[in-house]
Amino acid sequence: MTVKSDIEIARAAQKLPIQEIGARLGIGAADLVPYGHDKAKVGQHFIDGVQDRPDGKLILVTAINPTPAGEGKTTTTVGLGDGLNRIGRKAAICIREASLGPCFGMKGGAAGGGHAQVVPMEDMNLHFTGDFHAITSAHNLLAAMIDNHIYWGNALEIDARRVVWRRVMDMNDRALRDVVSSLGGVANGFPRQTGFDITVASEVMAILCLATSLSDLQNRLGRIIVAYRRDRTPVYASDLKADGAMTVLLKDAMQPNLVQTLENNPAFVHGGPFANIAHGCNSVIATTTALKCADYVVTEAGFGADLGAEKFMNIKCRKAGLAPDCVVLVATVRAMKMNGGVAKGDLAAEDVEAVRRGCPNLGRHIANVKQFGVPVVVAVNHFTGDTEAEIAAVQDYVAEQGSEAILCRHWAEGSAGIEDLARRVAEIADAGQSQFAPLYPDDMPLFEKIERIAKRIYRADQVIADQKIRSQLHEWEEAGYGRLPICMAKTQYSFSTDPTLRGAPTGHDVPIREVRLSAGAGFVVVICGEIMTMPGLPRVPSAEAIMLNDAGQIEGLF
Amino acid sequence: MTVKSDIEIARAAQKLPIQEIGARLGIGAADLVPYGHDKAKVGQHFIDGVQDRPDGKLILVTAINPTPAGEGKTTTTVGLGDGLNRIGRKAAICIREASLGPCFGMKGGAAGGGHAQVVPMEDMNLHFTGDFHAITSAHNLLAAMIDNHIYWGNALEIDARRVVWRRVMDMNDRALRDVVSSLGGVANGFPRQTGFDITVASEVMAILCLATSLSDLQNRLGRIIVAYRRDRTPVYASDLKADGAMTVLLKDAMQPNLVQTLENNPAFVHGGPFANIAHGCNSVIATTTALKCADYVVTEAGFGADLGAEKFMNIKCRKAGLAPDCVVLVATVRAMKMNGGVAKGDLAAEDVEAVRRGCPNLGRHIANVKQFGVPVVVAVNHFTGDTEAEIAAVQDYVAEQGSEAILCRHWAEGSAGIEDLARRVAEIADAGQSQFAPLYPDDMPLFEKIERIAKRIYRADQVIADQKIRSQLHEWEEAGYGRLPICMAKTQYSFSTDPTLRGAPTGHDVPIREVRLSAGAGFVVVICGEIMTMPGLPRVPSAEAIMLNDAGQIEGLF
Repeated sequence: MTVKSDIEIARAAQKLPIQEIGARLGIGAADLVPYGHDKAKVGQHFIDGVQDRPDGKLILVTAINPTPAGEGKTTTTVGLGDGLNRIGRKAAICIREASLGPCFGMKGGAAGGGHAQVVPMEDMNLHFTGDFHAITSAHNLLAAMIDNHIYWGNALEIDARRVVWRRVMDMNDRALRDVVSSLGGVANGFPRQTGFDITVASEVMAILCLATSLSDLQNRLGRIIVAYRRDRTPVYASDLKADGAMTVLLKDAMQPNLVQTLENNPAFVHGGPFANIAHGCNSVIATTTALKCADYVVTEAGFGADLGAEKFMNIKCRKAGLAPDCVVLVATVRAMKMNGGVAKGDLAAEDVEAVRRGCPNLGRHIANVKQFGVPVVVAVNHFTGDTEAEIAAVQDYVAEQGSEAILCRHWAEGSAGIEDLARRVAEIADAGQSQFAPLYPDDMPLFEKIERIAKRIYRADQVIADQKIRSQLHEWEEAGYGRLPICMAKTQYSFSTDPTLRGAPTGHDVPIREVRLSAGAGFVVVICGEIMTMPGLPRVPSAEAIMLNDAGQIEGLF
Repeated sequence: MTVKSDIEIARAAQKLPIQEIGARLGIGAADLVPYGHDKAKVGQHFIDGVQDRPDGKLILVTAINPTPAGEGKTTTTVGLGDGLNRIGRKAAICIREASLGPCFGMKGGAAGGGHAQVVPMEDMNLHFTGDFHAITSAHNLLAAMIDNHIYWGNALEIDARRVVWRRVMDMNDRALRDVVSSLGGVANGFPRQTGFDITVASEVMAILCLATSLSDLQNRLGRIIVAYRRDRTPVYASDLKADGAMTVLLKDAMQPNLVQTLENNPAFVHGGPFANIAHGCNSVIATTTALKCADYVVTEAGFGADLGAEKFMNIKCRKAGLAPDCVVLVATVRAMKMNGGVAKGDLAAEDVEAVRRGCPNLGRHIANVKQFGVPVVVAVNHFTGDTEAEIAAVQDYVAEQGSEAILCRHWAEGSAGIEDLARRVAEIADAGQSQFAPLYPDDMPLFEKIERIAKRIYRADQVIADQKIRSQLHEWEEAGYGRLPICMAKTQYSFSTDPTLRGAPTGHDVPIREVRLSAGAGFVVVICGEIMTMPGLPRVPSAEAIMLNDAGQIEGLF
């Protein structure tokens, strides 16, 4: 059997005009702002008009700790959306937008895979509807206004050594990580050390994804801390009067994007914050809009459930007033084997024992999700080499945990391969058993919130932080930021802060290296280990092979 | 009488769906790629299909040397397009896109003014269809690939001190003019001095505007010189294998944008290269496409005729095989007064003598345009304070030069105010009297080309260049670049290189400070005086007042 590549399948897609996709959600053509014939933004007028409608059911797709074997979280999100539509439910999916820069490093960024994809794939990996460019512009306008303010006399008394707002670019460019700017003499300002992050790491990205309206967006932008004075008091974006112009730049980007799956079901693709220094979910406005238009909304969170689902629950749901009705935890036989100690090169051979050894990673995620009061079902994303005995081993293990694992073949078969999961998820969601609650209350002290996550989710013994960090947290509490949730930035490969520690480790500590206040986004970032906010290109960047072929199609991007 | 502001007039516009505008040019809805309901790109398939059609008539709108009084060149371009449609001719206009960054410095960037505007004004001054963002991405991808190549071993032996490719951002940010990059240690590369230009100054912008097809685009991108080796041999973008990916990033940006005037006539708005270090005209692909769809195409060139029209003729028309049928030279009574020595604050009072004193500036532009073999007519763009005697003084002067000056009231009256000019322009174009030829042949040595422009257009006595510059030009000739046209970068305020020297100076010299090779765009840039390629923000940037009002409209942008 010849297996078609993702791009071959995507190119063969019979896309419908985006107006037909909108119509299925009750969004008229006048309420769609088209970008080409297969992409549109949902107009503000429509969003304003549906606020009184009841919400559909919210289903979160998350996963075990990622391994190099690949779990297929987005593929399962897309497949489950298609599966729910197949069994007659009105469902939409909500996923993140891809970042442009990394596509020129490693092969990029398809939205799903096999027969569970979102299209148009090329556009989604390139400029799409321009949202990330708008975020780049808004971020860098603020940066320019800071240096400009200092240049013209610095009435706000910004300490140039304590400017914390860097610049961003949607590009993998290590040369920009650390620069000295404003060289060249009087006309160019005061030299200072600064740098660039990749656009998805911008606090503006996190803000756009958490804002509930344009006015909320502007308020949050205004609350961004851009610098400190000598007396350590913060200078805000609103002090520079930058929030209005930034909002204008983001006006269109705030509208959710609508595209379609290969099976012509609606897909909202909007926002894409980092899953480490930010919360890693698609925008609140996309999710809440989808919930007003569809009976079931399937969405996903970044990385594994220890990071992604935890932040989805504790940050996004808490802040947006959302409550998930069901969680789908994606696992694969291959990933269980890797958690069980098998190297990537040896995954082809059947190894039921290794599967069993790796399953405790899955088991802990199941238990963790249950702590939030949300029912959980495991999706075993089928790979062609999986044996029946291996699959049975996963299913048996999950059953022992009091949950259930359902085999899904959406990658190979599209919605026909995921009907069982769709039926079960609909059943769970319809039953209304979920009793969602965040893991910690708003009024818990910041350090205790960190401990709560570390102990309950990571199962660590203790959180290690020096006095400087504890004092910083205390200062923020004094300044009124104590009610903010925590955004953990640690490795996605392990429950611990050691990426090589697979499975379900215990007895480890969580050392905090640094804390940062994202006052506009509304969370405190806790950094454990090295976090790279500006990637570099590899020795042979994929850009070298990206080009248009004679038919005008894009080669090399996937 | 209450005079409405530009933005009030623009907001009151009764826009037609962009598909109706396309239909008037014979472009079907399927051949338009919509961006919202009032903007579209013209699809590549349509462009490919019209290549065998005859061309319409090409009319260039240019102007006297700009003064702080404002000439209204774009306003006249828009008005003339509307006027031609009003008298029953099928006409389209072609103008440049606005740059985002400067809108946050000074009040931006309306497309025309009064009752001669292109809409949607807000979008055109913000992200529009994303073309400039695509150019920024393509430019910076190349920059990242240069540093990445050096980082991974520098097989091409790039001399890091001789990297000539900077980065770009569409932002007025003086802090980025001069930076040291790659600081921070081994992981970030080799520190070197570099900087950022504003996006419109990118050679990628000039290339996009001169390319005739996607394959021509890729070839030109590949020919960009990014650096030199120790032995001074050039390293090209194609050596880094960056041209394919850059082309992919620019694929959509290459398609011309279609919008409409206030009177619902078609307007192509595409590309926006600097008018000093680049050639300052809208894209070749927009102009050639418009010529296949309309019987009359009205376009404009940057700055005054000494820079803009000269480059339009010697660079754009030469390279694209275009030949203008008529030139409209825009002048105002106010600008004549300023050329006659009146200060801006004193323009309100009638001063016929000052008008007469200023007219030689206009007279020289008329004579210059005639050197290209193209008929010229003067448009006197009426301002409310102009007196009959002042207008008569301009008209009498122009008549003495053997040309004619027609009073136009399009700003106040729309197309009804510019019928006389439209009739005369159509008459001239239809008569087919134009015998266009560039000012110098391809095979003239580079320095002689510079002298030709300086002596015939600027009426300078001589060109001054030290041996280093002459040797550089000679080296480029040896390397096969001798047939390229010249792109002069000098002040736009005077025929000379001294911006304070108004009127029609003689006896001056043209000193060359620097020459640069834009091998991808295909011209040699000759720099006379200071050229700023990264603007700064003013003390009170307009960004401070830009915001959404309660109705969701943008305030402060205009």
